[in-house]
Amino acid sequence: MFGELTATTPAGGDLVRLAEGHVATLAERAGRHDRQNTFVADNFTDLRDSGVLAACAPLRHGGLGVRSLYDVLVAVSRLARGCGSTAICANMHMASVWGQVRRWERAEAAGDRSTAARLDTLLEALGGSDLIMAGAATEPGASWNGPLTEAVRKDDEYVITGRKTFVTNSAVADSFNVAVRVADADGGWRHAEAVVLAGTPGLTVLGDWDALGMRGSGSHGLLLEDCVVPADRVTLGEPFGPPTVDDLTRSCAVNFPLLGASLGIAEAAHLIAVEHATRVPRQPGRAAAAHHPSVQREIATMEVDLAAARGVLERAGRLVDALFADPAEHPVDAVHDVVRAWQTAKLLANRTAVGVVDRAMTICGGASFSSRHPLSRLYRDARAGGFMQPFGPLDGYPFIGRVALGLDPSAD
Amino acid sequence: MFGELTATTPAGGDLVRLAEGHVATLAERAGRHDRQNTFVADNFTDLRDSGVLAACAPLRHGGLGVRSLYDVLVAVSRLARGCGSTAICANMHMASVWGQVRRWERAEAAGDRSTAARLDTLLEALGGSDLIMAGAATEPGASWNGPLTEAVRKDDEYVITGRKTFVTNSAVADSFNVAVRVADADGGWRHAEAVVLAGTPGLTVLGDWDALGMRGSGSHGLLLEDCVVPADRVTLGEPFGPPTVDDLTRSCAVNFPLLGASLGIAEAAHLIAVEHATRVPRQPGRAAAAHHPSVQREIATMEVDLAAARGVLERAGRLVDALFADPAEHPVDAVHDVVRAWQTAKLLANRTAVGVVDRAMTICGGASFSSRHPLSRLYRDARAGGFMQPFGPLDGYPFIGRVALGLDPSAD
Amino acid sequence: MFGELTATTPAGGDLVRLAEGHVATLAERAGRHDRQNTFVADNFTDLRDSGVLAACAPLRHGGLGVRSLYDVLVAVSRLARGCGSTAICANMHMASVWGQVRRWERAEAAGDRSTAARLDTLLEALGGSDLIMAGAATEPGASWNGPLTEAVRKDDEYVITGRKTFVTNSAVADSFNVAVRVADADGGWRHAEAVVLAGTPGLTVLGDWDALGMRGSGSHGLLLEDCVVPADRVTLGEPFGPPTVDDLTRSCAVNFPLLGASLGIAEAAHLIAVEHATRVPRQPGRAAAAHHPSVQREIATMEVDLAAARGVLERAGRLVDALFADPAEHPVDAVHDVVRAWQTAKLLANRTAVGVVDRAMTICGGASFSSRHPLSRLYRDARAGGFMQPFGPLDGYPFIGRVALGLDPSAD
Amino acid sequence: MFGELTATTPAGGDLVRLAEGHVATLAERAGRHDRQNTFVADNFTDLRDSGVLAACAPLRHGGLGVRSLYDVLVAVSRLARGCGSTAICANMHMASVWGQVRRWERAEAAGDRSTAARLDTLLEALGGSDLIMAGAATEPGASWNGPLTEAVRKDDEYVITGRKTFVTNSAVADSFNVAVRVADADGGWRHAEAVVLAGTPGLTVLGDWDALGMRGSGSHGLLLEDCVVPADRVTLGEPFGPPTVDDLTRSCAVNFPLLGASLGIAEAAHLIAVEHATRVPRQPGRAAAAHHPSVQREIATMEVDLAAARGVLERAGRLVDALFADPAEHPVDAVHDVVRAWQTAKLLANRTAVGVVDRAMTICGGASFSSRHPLSRLYRDARAGGFMQPFGPLDGYPFIGRVALGLDPSAD
Repeated sequence: MFGELTATTPAGGDLVRLAEGHVATLAERAGRHDRQNTFVADNFTDLRDSGVLAACAPLRHGGLGVRSLYDVLVAVSRLARGCGSTAICANMHMASVWGQVRRWERAEAAGDRSTAARLDTLLEALGGSDLIMAGAATEPGASWNGPLTEAVRKDDEYVITGRKTFVTNSAVADSFNVAVRVADADGGWRHAEAVVLAGTPGLTVLGDWDALGMRGSGSHGLLLEDCVVPADRVTLGEPFGPPTVDDLTRSCAVNFPLLGASLGIAEAAHLIAVEHATRVPRQPGRAAAAHHPSVQREIATMEVDLAAARGVLERAGRLVDALFADPAEHPVDAVHDVVRAWQTAKLLANRTAVGVVDRAMTICGGASFSSRHPLSRLYRDARAGGFMQPFGPLDGYPFIGRVALGLDPSAD
Repeated sequence: MFGELTATTPAGGDLVRLAEGHVATLAERAGRHDRQNTFVADNFTDLRDSGVLAACAPLRHGGLGVRSLYDVLVAVSRLARGCGSTAICANMHMASVWGQVRRWERAEAAGDRSTAARLDTLLEALGGSDLIMAGAATEPGASWNGPLTEAVRKDDEYVITGRKTFVTNSAVADSFNVAVRVADADGGWRHAEAVVLAGTPGLTVLGDWDALGMRGSGSHGLLLEDCVVPADRVTLGEPFGPPTVDDLTRSCAVNFPLLGASLGIAEAAHLIAVEHATRVPRQPGRAAAAHHPSVQREIATMEVDLAAARGVLERAGRLVDALFADPAEHPVDAVHDVVRAWQTAKLLANRTAVGVVDRAMTICGGASFSSRHPLSRLYRDARAGGFMQPFGPLDGYPFIGRVALGLDPSAD
Repeated sequence: MFGELTATTPAGGDLVRLAEGHVATLAERAGRHDRQNTFVADNFTDLRDSGVLAACAPLRHGGLGVRSLYDVLVAVSRLARGCGSTAICANMHMASVWGQVRRWERAEAAGDRSTAARLDTLLEALGGSDLIMAGAATEPGASWNGPLTEAVRKDDEYVITGRKTFVTNSAVADSFNVAVRVADADGGWRHAEAVVLAGTPGLTVLGDWDALGMRGSGSHGLLLEDCVVPADRVTLGEPFGPPTVDDLTRSCAVNFPLLGASLGIAEAAHLIAVEHATRVPRQPGRAAAAHHPSVQREIATMEVDLAAARGVLERAGRLVDALFADPAEHPVDAVHDVVRAWQTAKLLANRTAVGVVDRAMTICGGASFSSRHPLSRLYRDARAGGFMQPFGPLDGYPFIGRVALGLDPSAD
Repeated sequence: MFGELTATTPAGGDLVRLAEGHVATLAERAGRHDRQNTFVADNFTDLRDSGVLAACAPLRHGGLGVRSLYDVLVAVSRLARGCGSTAICANMHMASVWGQVRRWERAEAAGDRSTAARLDTLLEALGGSDLIMAGAATEPGASWNGPLTEAVRKDDEYVITGRKTFVTNSAVADSFNVAVRVADADGGWRHAEAVVLAGTPGLTVLGDWDALGMRGSGSHGLLLEDCVVPADRVTLGEPFGPPTVDDLTRSCAVNFPLLGASLGIAEAAHLIAVEHATRVPRQPGRAAAAHHPSVQREIATMEVDLAAARGVLERAGRLVDALFADPAEHPVDAVHDVVRAWQTAKLLANRTAVGVVDRAMTICGGASFSSRHPLSRLYRDARAGGFMQPFGPLDGYPFIGRVALGLDPSAD
């Protein structure tokens, strides 16, 4: 596809080629999963088998050793051309693997043998895709950075109670990384992440995912009622407060490549519109719609919007990859600048997906309003992006503006 | 609701008040019809009982005597605040009644007693809402002004074969006004309208309506296989060609008030967003979202867009009503100017519906992405407007531009 | 011009016709005033002679008795088709007369004979256009509602010191209504308006107007150095604070009709573009540019934008006129709603002027980039609107959003 | 400046650093040249002295050996931060040198000794900046690809007559590359380029440049009345027709880097707005404007727009540089794809310049409407981009749309 994004590393290139091999099958199945509101389990298995899911694991753990989050984004965009739900499911797992690899590397570098060994074992499982980890961060009525789900220390265990939403992959996850709060000695709250295994008593995957779009992603609610977890499965973080450098970079590693879903959805719509316009006349017996100046104008506008989205994603990707390539502590301002670029890309990519699908429907006409038409699914899938972490337009614009003005982006 | 459109005639005012009385019930039922993809039969019955459906019939035929199409538009916008599907169903019937009244008046004025008598009887039935007439105009792959469905003359009957789509109200219609073509002596085609009664052998309501939005409108396909119709039920029109003044005014009488659906959907979304923002904080324990500057900005932008849509609808309505109030033949240019104003309003109203719903979702956050949230229905219903007759953006812009430049809008 | 706004009262209709009679001459002179940066004194004289300037004075004072501010706006828009600078100059004087008439009526109604008599005399002068009053409100670095220019009471006089900018008509004004602050007993500030006659010692019209656009408006700075004014020429107002109902309505009476300038500029550009496109081919020997689909698209987009601006102006005008027609005290909320509608119209009208001129230049091509081309003046004049009182986008959006959300628009 | 474009080659990096060294001086002088409508001769001399103008000449000819047109664009964008006029003047000369170097390399590669020797001498002069070459392409009323200026063969000379506009640098040019037409034997026309030396009898630089913006660029008209030129100074090209691959690539080499002017103007406006907002309060005694949410929103929107423009420019630059790096004949489709990317970037960069300056004025308020304020110059300079070669929006959208749809972009 002209102008499409391409991987920047050889390993990333391998991943993108793998992803491209799945597109046709994903596209074929997308309508059924959407209509039946079923998790894309078949796709997930295919991606596991082909090696996409484990791509970020090191070669020795059975992965491709992909380090570039931008390259992951490119692969996610390819998957999204076939099925947006599958793309975000794959991203969640790939990003999870990517994060564990970074932890393992840090442990190795620090000479922390026991952690390294534990993570080595974990990566064996992830590299073989024998283990699916889902992140459980979002809660109804809470900000992305202030969970209400609480873990209470009891001896050498934690008891966890709360409710999560949008838990992508929850249908097949073996383990959940649950963002919780833990009471501090001083009466405040502290962030923590609890690893809760599937099957833990009190843990219920609600099976209630029924959304406008991304219906195949199995993003069910998760109910935690007095779930008991060994203390060493709970990693304490910082006290509650405005997002820290760590919060932002952690979110970036998961949510930056996720933007590929918005791009891929827009690209799929563009391909459908071009195919339609070059094949179907607007009236019987006339030239193909492509010859109509209004169709050319809509297509050109889509091209401009796609080009802009790709351009900002590529340049943001370079900054994101540079941030993670450098093991040093990053000054707050430097991280805010990367987040500024990332959120700029997010606003544009999310908006472009909605806009490009809308124009594609205009070109394809009333037929695309049918539930059976792929554009009617893309129209719904495209709207998901704006709700994804960390910022939608309400918080994204102020963040970008404040950083550009040299202000603390967390202040209000 | 601040800035809402209001009726310009006393009869129209009565209709709008009637329509407003239905909104709460319609809103209550909208989600179910949408989920179950069922025709809004209960609403249709309610509107029949309250007198909304027959509002355009003269008082002596049991109606309210509403003549202003703009006032019908205002009433349709109120209904759409509760349920977009019901709004378009009601519009189709009201516009149909409105058209028969104009025919009856013309027959009366011309002293054509027999036609007047026949229409008088028809209006009795319509005024009592004992008769539901559906229009069957659109066909897959054909332009709005060149039907492929054909009526072949055989003695004093016509045999009709073809396929129609988007036949709103087809689930309950007693009679269909089917746009057909009839072979001309010279080998060309001529427009015609055939009245085909429900139950005619060969006529099948396909029951296949399953669309992205407006799911309660029962806009099924209609199959006509050798349907035999008495010749006096077929009214011959002009030879095929670019849209004539008659084509345009006939379409205007049905499709101008339909724009109320786009406005009402936008208004419903705006009301939901304001209600949410003034009630729910963006984070637990904080002030209501309304205090967030970004929320105020989105709301203000919605206000600007709504104000623009209302302004152009009102001004176009004045021209439309003036056109129909004047019984004289209208010069082509005068009609093109009215259509220019109407299509300007259509582009803006259709676009505003999509844009305002999108912003409302931004304000309401991830919860609005749930299938159970009314905004997720409005997001889908809003997209229907752009596909409605006669022009979407592909043809609407050239039409407006050409008329403004003094060119023949039909040329290409 | 198709779709143009029209007056709503007979007196307003007379005014609009008068204004239309000036357009050709104004257009002829506009380039010269712009290039030479000279006040439009000749136009001002013409408008005085024809009766435009005094139109809001009662018949008995020699005016037309125009009461509708909307009708004034329509007239201002006609003048702006010829010359934006002249349009705003005329507006400032017409609005000033309008305001004095309301004061006189209130005095009459209240039986305040002496005030009525004084205003009667003033209106004699204004009605004969023997007196030009300019408003001096804006100051560099101060908000529209918190002047730094100060009037200090000394016995039965006030001594005024400060500096004003954007004093339209200052070149020919006989008298200035200067917004000042007066120290309160409690240490705070109070609003006041001082009438300072031209020729008062210490008063200097700086003659420094040299701006991007509206160059003919003579909007010089005004320097007040110890200007002594009799106490009865200073009207005390309310203590400083957020804008009150009085502040807003007073500003509305001056600045609502001023929006006609933005509309008229857009209309002038549209007319130029249509004339060019229908006359000039894009390449030698080809059909006129009007036949190019891209030109039709730009023209259509201009039509949509103009229609939206006109629609919101008309509907806002109805609210504004209703507000002033009702002599009762208006509740704060009702006034805020009118201001909401007015500011919505302002945002849209200001933006439309800039956008329509831009598209007109695209149609007319490189020739319009020449200083001699009228569009290169309109491009600059159009940008003035966003800076006009009371709100630009930075404050307009929050005002509209807060009122729509039921919040106090003055809070921050 | 965060997110700014950077050179991709070492030589390009040197050029960009040189360009950055000029910004402050250029900015200082920009207002004066704009007001006085004088050619930026002083800046031109400075750029000659520093080596910017000759940067594309090989090292052996005294240049920096810059080959990347993208790097030239980056340098042009830096110059435009100081002065848009100077930036386009510099671009015209740099691109001219760049083009001669490519010709010289082709002659060397082809073993065409005499041409190589001639160009070697020319490059000596250009490398020392002893020779200024201006392009004279545009004509009033003619398309960019069909000049009316005609060269008539008479023995071993050509006699040239015609009129050119927008001849940037004409005030100081030693030589003009004039696009002409030559009659073909078959009665049609053929493209040709004539090198006309300053001082040739019949050649008049009209000194008539007086435009809305870019006033310092000395883009006068050029009158050619029976100018006699030796035949070897006229290079014949292809017969008239739709733009060929050669036409497009030749235009690209000059006009792609020119887009840096639009970017630099936008960046200058952004810097001014940020500086203002962080320094000046919106009301006396309040926090700096940067703390106002509306200001943050405008700044963020500018950031998004700038990021998009930069992203598409960078990606288009990669394609442009790759096209020229490969000496092979390029298939038509490949060239059309590069032009598609370039024109996408052009539309976005031109539009971004206008939009970002507009927002900067909103932030800086009424003061920026003064002729003395740099934004009031940037507002005018920014509008030039849309008129530049080869396509504005009227032709750019159709070109992009047709190529994307697989159609011949030249057809209509």
